[in-house]
Amino acid sequence: MTLTNDAPARRVRRLADRQVTDRDALYRLLDDQLVGHLAAVADGMPIVVPMAYARVGDDLLLHGSTGGGFALRAVETRAPVAFAVTSLDGVVVARSLYDSSMNYRSAVAYGTLEPVDDPTAALDALADRLIPGRGAEVRANTRREVAGTRVLRLALDDVVMKARAGGPSEAPDDGEDRSVWAGVVPLAPAWGEPVASELTPEQTPMPESVVALMRSRARLPTL
Amino acid sequence: MTLTNDAPARRVRRLADRQVTDRDALYRLLDDQLVGHLAAVADGMPIVVPMAYARVGDDLLLHGSTGGGFALRAVETRAPVAFAVTSLDGVVVARSLYDSSMNYRSAVAYGTLEPVDDPTAALDALADRLIPGRGAEVRANTRREVAGTRVLRLALDDVVMKARAGGPSEAPDDGEDRSVWAGVVPLAPAWGEPVASELTPEQTPMPESVVALMRSRARLPTL
Repeated sequence: MTLTNDAPARRVRRLADRQVTDRDALYRLLDDQLVGHLAAVADGMPIVVPMAYARVGDDLLLHGSTGGGFALRAVETRAPVAFAVTSLDGVVVARSLYDSSMNYRSAVAYGTLEPVDDPTAALDALADRLIPGRGAEVRANTRREVAGTRVLRLALDDVVMKARAGGPSEAPDDGEDRSVWAGVVPLAPAWGEPVASELTPEQTPMPESVVALMRSRARLPTL
Repeated sequence: MTLTNDAPARRVRRLADRQVTDRDALYRLLDDQLVGHLAAVADGMPIVVPMAYARVGDDLLLHGSTGGGFALRAVETRAPVAFAVTSLDGVVVARSLYDSSMNYRSAVAYGTLEPVDDPTAALDALADRLIPGRGAEVRANTRREVAGTRVLRLALDDVVMKARAGGPSEAPDDGEDRSVWAGVVPLAPAWGEPVASELTPEQTPMPESVVALMRSRARLPTL
């Protein structure tokens, strides 16, 4: 359920926490986000780190120096992992503090990490997910770069997705003052103005990949 | 390190993955985000769920139906937990796929969950963190609402914070084509247009709390 903001008369209906079983909704969530949280057990203790990922078909490709250490260990020992991807979609402003809430979509995939068969292709997929089309503008990964990286795969076999969407609870007899505004304030990531690197020559045009990236989400107003 | 976007001639410098030991930087991250990921071990398996939180002093207050089940169990058994809060701050567009990256800030707090001494005050703090000032516009939580909720506390005693900021790696002799644009595209959450609930009377003005909330982050352009 999408919040539509174009017409002032549109009102949000409530669709509370619920399990989502729609595979397309899962793909939309995974393809909309860039970072998830990988949890594992190390010496009986929970560990969790943020990691970049890319969905390719029914696999999540993981790769990230942040969690490199324990992720690699998890591969070697075939330790179970859980990988959570969450999108915070809005703040739900109810007429009581108790009913105030957040709209979100969240998926947790359970399984084990495995090395990918073709690291070169997997690294390209990860990069293309981050900045689509960038591969055509820069040199290919060198053999040394590929050799120095390990890309891991988590199959989307065992996934639980949950979501909350829509407006606040408005149960009768909840003691709430109906004259007060209630509703939802949507929240979404937006791009800021790109900033060139130190060595980018003056007047260098922004490449097609960055122009397209900027079009893929709303742009933050210049402050 | 903040990316400044106002002057075209400003260039981002690189500040790669590093551990952050500045307590104020930790507070800024925690106070900027609304949702973290709680990881624990259940029957030897890793579990992770998104949860709303509020920082009050050197405690994180947690509360959220999503993870209610295992969080409560973790309290009862004094099981160790890890709670991660991450802010994705931008996409780093390098001149190679290999060096492409993300700017982020991330903190992981380790410890055990404990019940709070004053659930009424803790619930108010959680609500005030979500929508500052809303408490003055709506009725107080009822005794039954407070009784039906458990707010948990995770002390910020054992926290690891990491961050990456600034532009891409531009090492000499990396085989990269220097004529190509490289830099950073900042990313930040922004508010969309508020949508009134079904039972909000027409012409009801937006309350001060929502007006202030909208000012607290950039506003998405109306599409």
